[in-house]
This record gives sequence, structure tokens and C-alpha cells, in this order.
Amino acid sequence: MALHHAAGIELTQVVARRSEALSDFIPEVPRGVLGTAVAEADVYVVAVSDSAIEAVARELLTKSGLVVHTSGARDPGALKGLSRVGVLYPLQTFSRERELKFGDIPLCLETSQPEDMPLLRTLAGALSQQVVELDLEARKGLHLAAVFVNNFANHMVYLGEAVCREHKLPANLLRPLLRETCSKLEALTAFQAQTGPARRGDRITQQAHLNLLGDSLQRKLYQLISESIQQTYD
Amino acid sequence: MALHHAAGIELTQVVARRSEALSDFIPEVPRGVLGTAVAEADVYVVAVSDSAIEAVARELLTKSGLVVHTSGARDPGALKGLSRVGVLYPLQTFSRERELKFGDIPLCLETSQPEDMPLLRTLAGALSQQVVELDLEARKGLHLAAVFVNNFANHMVYLGEAVCREHKLPANLLRPLLRETCSKLEALTAFQAQTGPARRGDRITQQAHLNLLGDSLQRKLYQLISESIQQTYD
Repeated sequence: MALHHAAGIELTQVVARRSEALSDFIPEVPRGVLGTAVAEADVYVVAVSDSAIEAVARELLTKSGLVVHTSGARDPGALKGLSRVGVLYPLQTFSRERELKFGDIPLCLETSQPEDMPLLRTLAGALSQQVVELDLEARKGLHLAAVFVNNFANHMVYLGEAVCREHKLPANLLRPLLRETCSKLEALTAFQAQTGPARRGDRITQQAHLNLLGDSLQRKLYQLISESIQQTYD
Repeated sequence: MALHHAAGIELTQVVARRSEALSDFIPEVPRGVLGTAVAEADVYVVAVSDSAIEAVARELLTKSGLVVHTSGARDPGALKGLSRVGVLYPLQTFSRERELKFGDIPLCLETSQPEDMPLLRTLAGALSQQVVELDLEARKGLHLAAVFVNNFANHMVYLGEAVCREHKLPANLLRPLLRETCSKLEALTAFQAQTGPARRGDRITQQAHLNLLGDSLQRKLYQLISESIQQTYD
């Protein structure tokens, strides 16, 4: 949708591996299924899971345009057998249910051939105000950072809600805390914003919490994260 | 400040253990230092770290009013030697730099004597719209949940920013992701919002991330949290 709306960009076709995947996409844009004819274009954006990049690349062997994947963790060379390859990695978390303001999303670019960068820059610049060139090493670092900031932080919220459920407490009690956790990080660094028993070195409360956790994996998590917080402030 | 502004509540005095702690408090409210005269009041709110509750209680032995502490993890009995005791636990993260809208903060109440509950309810109701009675077990569960939702989620953001620093990447690249991580949780449950290599069972990316982490504690954390995410979706 961001490509369809971007000024100066013509979204020629949307292609999926299974046609059902496109059933809720707007009808204005021509659709295709991989394995049948894929339209000619200047750039092909392969937005699939990492493990599918190679298989999709095989379907584009006859194309002369630039082919980019969107992975934070793979080399442009993951598009095997193609020569004009690159990466357009959007640093964001995507869920089908969520519409995003694409203009804010950092787009990290790499091309195997320097002469392809201006084209990729033009495409990325039409989508977002924040465009950076990053090689694989830097991009991998950023992807790892994103796992902590999004995936792992989100899982901590999940675990907190699970503890609430176990104690038959309404989950909405945690809402204001979650909101302030987020707002605080707009004003303070995460280093400054940290509070809690681990930050204070309050062993009594930590032990009481460990006694409450029935699940051994959760107990290990509690201990290890507390240790990491304490190490941060030692 | 919330007590000072609350309709129907008269904040008689603010008392600290060290007078410097009150240096930036508004001059309209009389101040005191613990150990010298503490004014008479209907309710005394002992808002100190858990380990200091007992020592502060000793200074209030001659008082006949209701004395409450604000801990999520301690019994009203932590106020040793006093008979009219209770708990007023605000489920929120507090930092000196942050002014909070107190009206949204869930206040969890407990009194050792049932006849003191109406008074504590009146006080709490003047501060917040969300007032719940919770016994120690439930409050401890909620406090533990809060550690995950706030303390641990915040530390994940810290670790993500630290990875960025190590790779000499600007930390502001993570801003839009952090914002979407938060907004997503307004619309979806944490269970639905989860994405990433652990959620997808993408072992190759997980291994690549582990290779990037130089610190053994961070490697252990990455493995354990990924395991917990996988277990959640198995």
C-alpha cells in the first residue's frame, strides 16, 4: 500500500506465492501468482520470510531489473543466481492488522553494485524520510537491536499479562503502567527510566517474586534479566 | 503533589528522612524531618523503599491515625508495632523527573482492620478513579506482573540501544520501532503483537544474532527469551 501511494512510484503488480494472500489487497493493482508471468519492472521487492528468499529469486532469473529483499539479516547474495541485487530493510514490526505511517520508518539500503544505489535511493526516498545506507554487518546489528526493543520487550509484556491471568487479576490494571513505560522512554533514556527491585538491589522482593513463579523457565528468566539489570548499574 | 491537589484532602505535612530530599517540594506545604515532630493526621502515608518501612514505623509509634505503606510486596504488618495499618499501593513506575496523571493510576488497598477501609477508600478515591481492594497474595502477583511489564520491558529497550551503540548506529533509528511496539499494544494483545525470529522459529537468524553478541550474559538472555517465546506459541 505504501508503494501504491508513493508519489513518483508505479506499483506495476503485486505477486504472492499463494493467491489467497492477496485476497484483501486493493483491486486497483494487478495481481499475480508466483510461477505464472511476473510483469517487467525497474525494481522487484521480494518481501518474504528469510527462508523463502532463495526460492522466490529462482522465479526472477530472467528479469533484468534490480531485485531487493527486505531482510534485516541476509546478504544481497541471498537472492541467488541474480546479479543486480540489493536490500531494502524497513526497521519496523509488521502485523497484517496494523496500518503504518511508512514515512517514519527507517529504510536501510544496500546494493551489490554501487551503480544500483541511486535507483534504490529514489524508491526508498519516495517511501520514507529516513533512508540510510548500511552494510550487512551494521544491518545485522540493527536487526538484533530491533529484536530486543520490539520482540523481547513485547514478550515481557506478554509474561506480565500472563502473571495477571494466573492471579485472576484484570489485565487492564496494567494499562496505565504500560502507557507510562512507553511515555517515559520518549523523555528519558532506558538507562535513566529503569526502576524496580533489580535496579535497587532489593534481594528480598526478588526472592519473593521467584517464589511466586511456578514455571522454571520464567524463574530462570527473572533471575537472568535481574542479573543483567544489576550488572548495568554496578 | 497529587495529595496536595486532591479535592477533600488536606496534606498536613511532608516529612522526609533527610531534609535535602524535600528541597524541590512546593513551599505551601509544611515540611518536617523524621526524628523531629511529625504533625497529627488521620492518615500517614509511608512512601519509602521497602527496607525502610520498619524504621519509619518506629517514628510513628505514638500516632493514633491510620498508617499505610505503599509497597507492592509487603504485608501491612511490615509497619511493626502499629495497630491501625494498611497498604496504598500505586501500580505505576515513578521517577523524580516525571509528573504523572495520578487519576489514572490503579491504587490497590488493604487494611489490617476492616473498619479502617472506608477511610483509606476515601483517600484513594480522591486521588484516582481506579481503586481496588487486594490482599497481599494478589498484590504480590500484580507487583510481579508490573516488574515484567515495566522493569524488564524497559531493560530490553536498554539492551537494544546498547547493541546499537556497539555497532556505532544512531539510537534514533530505533525510535519508530519503539513507538509502534507501544501503539501496537493499544490495539492488539501482546500475544497477537509478537513477531520476530523466535516467533517464526527462524533458527538461522537466531544463530546469527547469537554470534553477534559478545557478552555471555546477553547471549544467555537471548537464548532464554527466545525459548520462552517459542514455548508460548508451541
